[in-house]
Amino acid sequence: MLDAKAKSTDILWHDSQVNRARREDLLNQRGGTIWLTGLPSSGKSTTAYGLESELFTRGFAAYVLDGDNVRHGLNKDLGFSARDRAENIRRIAETAKLFADAGIIVITSFISPYRVERDFARRIHLEAGFNFSEIYIDTPLEVCEQRDPKGLYKKVRRGELQGFTGIDDPYEPPFAPELVCRTAEFSPGEIVSRILGFMTEAGFFLRGDRYSRSFAGK
Amino acid sequence: MLDAKAKSTDILWHDSQVNRARREDLLNQRGGTIWLTGLPSSGKSTTAYGLESELFTRGFAAYVLDGDNVRHGLNKDLGFSARDRAENIRRIAETAKLFADAGIIVITSFISPYRVERDFARRIHLEAGFNFSEIYIDTPLEVCEQRDPKGLYKKVRRGELQGFTGIDDPYEPPFAPELVCRTAEFSPGEIVSRILGFMTEAGFFLRGDRYSRSFAGK
Repeated sequence: MLDAKAKSTDILWHDSQVNRARREDLLNQRGGTIWLTGLPSSGKSTTAYGLESELFTRGFAAYVLDGDNVRHGLNKDLGFSARDRAENIRRIAETAKLFADAGIIVITSFISPYRVERDFARRIHLEAGFNFSEIYIDTPLEVCEQRDPKGLYKKVRRGELQGFTGIDDPYEPPFAPELVCRTAEFSPGEIVSRILGFMTEAGFFLRGDRYSRSFAGK
Repeated sequence: MLDAKAKSTDILWHDSQVNRARREDLLNQRGGTIWLTGLPSSGKSTTAYGLESELFTRGFAAYVLDGDNVRHGLNKDLGFSARDRAENIRRIAETAKLFADAGIIVITSFISPYRVERDFARRIHLEAGFNFSEIYIDTPLEVCEQRDPKGLYKKVRRGELQGFTGIDDPYEPPFAPELVCRTAEFSPGEIVSRILGFMTEAGFFLRGDRYSRSFAGK
């Protein structure tokens, strides 16, 4: 019966699921997470989007998870209580892990002030065999407050915002991040360049750039 | 100061974020969601993993979201109350949208029994301009119950399981799915072939197969 219905365009059936080797073979990269952490206005977004752009230029598939795409969708049921903030980071960590499993390089751009939450993200990635690199965007509070692109520090100083990380809410710097980036001393381009170098050594990239473009120019 | 520190390996800095065109150019595909829906044991998983495998064979990046990778991670805080089931599907829809935004073809494999929830998934995708295709895995209840690979129907019939979709919990078939697949009449290979044909017409694939492999053999 089934054979009689089969058409010439019918596929050859493969029972095997797509494993990590097949994903790596297609995408030329290892899935994994670049977890940025740092104070408000420390330069996480600039770094995240700059890195994503440079990865694409080199033929690697990357994606930024940040407040813009997570808070308005997946986590829009969450507020800013301690419990909701923890759940926010937990879901981001689990979502990043799904992207890593799909073979994508995911860049998370959240303050993520607590070590215990970042350690949870690291643990679930490493247990599943995915790359995980914590990158500390280490910008002095004074510099962050000078930049203040959204005017949040000003609001805090005027008493209009409470529970602000770095002022009246704690930020716990990483004990042993894979990389520390000082945005007060280096340009965004220099920082992205440094992260790309680190990622090369950490084994995110397989068989070089897909388009054979060099880091120096194209 | 900054110039003096710059190295020859420093990247050329691009300010632009990665837009949809760049993702499509890299991945040769349009990000979007293939949303499978159907009774327990209707053949959703077989279809999902078969489709994922065939997509990879053709050079397209896909990922299956299902109970295995979602319930044990992102949604492991959720139980099976009506409220938790709704939140389960809401988060899956939002996560699928993130994957679509990343340019990935995501295949969701959940019973997803309620029209209102599937319509939510559709709406958030279409509003953002992503592909969304609802595929009804239309297998008669008797066939599902005969297959019963996990012995769940047997448990229900012995009274050991309550609130089981299709028996004592409702399943709302789609009114207007993009595609209906009858697994009682066609083989898994035929069904995946049909979905691939549909996806070709729906514009998921750009500039043909990356590896120029034909559907008929390789």
